[in-house]
Amino acid sequence: MRIAVDAMGGDRAPKVIVEGALAAAEAFPDVQLYLVGKPDEVRAFVDGELPERVTLVEADEVIGMEEHPAKALRRKPSSSIAVCGGLLREQKVDAIVSAGNTGAVIAASLFAARLLEGVHRPGIAVSFPCKGGGTSVLCDVGANINMKPVHYLQYAVMASAYSRDVLGVEKPRVGLLNIGTEESKGGSELRAVRGLLEEAAEAGLIHFVGAVEGNHIFEGEADVVVCDGFVGNTILKSAEGAARVVMEQLEGFLAQALSSGAAAALPADALTGSLRKLKEFTDYSTYGGAPLLGIDGCAIIAHGRSNARAIKHAIEVARDFAQRGVNEHIAQALGELSAKGVPS
Amino acid sequence: MRIAVDAMGGDRAPKVIVEGALAAAEAFPDVQLYLVGKPDEVRAFVDGELPERVTLVEADEVIGMEEHPAKALRRKPSSSIAVCGGLLREQKVDAIVSAGNTGAVIAASLFAARLLEGVHRPGIAVSFPCKGGGTSVLCDVGANINMKPVHYLQYAVMASAYSRDVLGVEKPRVGLLNIGTEESKGGSELRAVRGLLEEAAEAGLIHFVGAVEGNHIFEGEADVVVCDGFVGNTILKSAEGAARVVMEQLEGFLAQALSSGAAAALPADALTGSLRKLKEFTDYSTYGGAPLLGIDGCAIIAHGRSNARAIKHAIEVARDFAQRGVNEHIAQALGELSAKGVPS
Repeated sequence: MRIAVDAMGGDRAPKVIVEGALAAAEAFPDVQLYLVGKPDEVRAFVDGELPERVTLVEADEVIGMEEHPAKALRRKPSSSIAVCGGLLREQKVDAIVSAGNTGAVIAASLFAARLLEGVHRPGIAVSFPCKGGGTSVLCDVGANINMKPVHYLQYAVMASAYSRDVLGVEKPRVGLLNIGTEESKGGSELRAVRGLLEEAAEAGLIHFVGAVEGNHIFEGEADVVVCDGFVGNTILKSAEGAARVVMEQLEGFLAQALSSGAAAALPADALTGSLRKLKEFTDYSTYGGAPLLGIDGCAIIAHGRSNARAIKHAIEVARDFAQRGVNEHIAQALGELSAKGVPS
Repeated sequence: MRIAVDAMGGDRAPKVIVEGALAAAEAFPDVQLYLVGKPDEVRAFVDGELPERVTLVEADEVIGMEEHPAKALRRKPSSSIAVCGGLLREQKVDAIVSAGNTGAVIAASLFAARLLEGVHRPGIAVSFPCKGGGTSVLCDVGANINMKPVHYLQYAVMASAYSRDVLGVEKPRVGLLNIGTEESKGGSELRAVRGLLEEAAEAGLIHFVGAVEGNHIFEGEADVVVCDGFVGNTILKSAEGAARVVMEQLEGFLAQALSSGAAAALPADALTGSLRKLKEFTDYSTYGGAPLLGIDGCAIIAHGRSNARAIKHAIEVARDFAQRGVNEHIAQALGELSAKGVPS
């Protein structure tokens, strides 16, 4: 499994990217990594020589997080994102991973790989931790803000394949995001979507469980939730924002309690251990690795705030995605949908 | 100030409603309350006689949280929500407060009160706690899922008046929810909205600060955020869901730490005090009280999970809303917009 990693993308690149990649190389012996970036800057974070299964690929430019994706890609053909895309295009790698400018990663991926047969629009699938320890997948979270009913159906099929193959959910329950669970809610477009999802469920291709609301995503009511990219992107960012505010408040309250004299009694281990676990839990970056579903290839978008652990995890997702045949399963399911006469 | 309170609405009605109303009657000597509900059930939670400024108004029926709003209102004219609406319509009260079926409260309010002059569509404005202790107002969160650009502008004007008059923000910063802060994001509708908000800002009627993303709502980047009702409703529920999962995880981790032997050392007061504060902070119900903006009257929608404190707070919001002339300020601002030639 050959994976290109954008060493320059993300808020803490190249440091955490290099660390995450080295950890992944050690953890996954079947992986050959290509670290793409400015050689000097990458080597600064390597002790001695690079391991055998990690190759440095030179890329002289960097696309900033705030640059216009398409323009930046055109202007910077030797940027780390463009070079990753080139490796994918020339099939020198099976997958790419980047925590850089999301729009540029999408544009480079779409330039590098065709869409899978039958796919109308690619979608980004993000995983959320939920109550009870499960993981729910939300698709799309920003690639598509001009949704048609058939796009929702395709996202349901694609994210179900991902949930099954990579997250190990045997029979992913698919929910349609809505603002009420009654059938009448959400307007005519969502009614049309609902009809399509029901047809696909009757054809045995997805396991549709009906409408779900925003809170249900975190309550584990569905394994896959489909929504339009504007809404999904907003959910992603709002949930992160809310979780972060909760953590900051907790730290503030505890600091108050400490300074008010309870300090000596605080059981540092139990408490800080719990806090650390909570931080990992709320830090969605540790779940790093959202695939761009629908392309004939594999592109994993990591969070800009990724730490080394998130990068390692994104590389693992890339490996599992490519190895377990997600794309073959997507193509197969879409083929069956159309063979069974479901508009797709 | 005369306020009708729906004693039967909400997950824990009538108990917490009666408790919250009695607490409000005691706290706000300028308020005359009408508790609307089944007399026996209400009296069961009152010790002795009702206070002088609390009057019981009989309503024999209850609209369930899952009932179809319009149908339920027609079928149950003597439901507590319908009776509250009737009191508002006959101007026997200045405001109504309900934690019941949101759709039914909206329908009853629209039946009881006309829209303010110039208002196209009412909107629900919810307050979120943010980083640093401020409060941001999100509008709309579910009343309007067929948005036109001018609706966003009107929500900006109305929520600004609310933020100023009720929340005490002198010069509310208005943000437009988008999925990126670049001007190009969000499609043509949001570009049109942006143009209108800029015109209104130039005319001095709102303080527009540009695009904000989901996380910014909780980071205090704006005092008022406008968005379409579908998106806003999803944000509201997702943020609640995420915050609740974080709290549950924290409790789980702490329980583990306790059971693993650190129990004896736990400084119960400091920790449980912090946890209790955090719970209050994350429990959006304690911020209870979202006004339906745009009607010529005052209807405050409380969260279905409201506790007594949330009900008391919702009654306070109703009092402040009616007393401080929010509707007069909205009408005035919309009038000025149109006088200055801003399409509104």
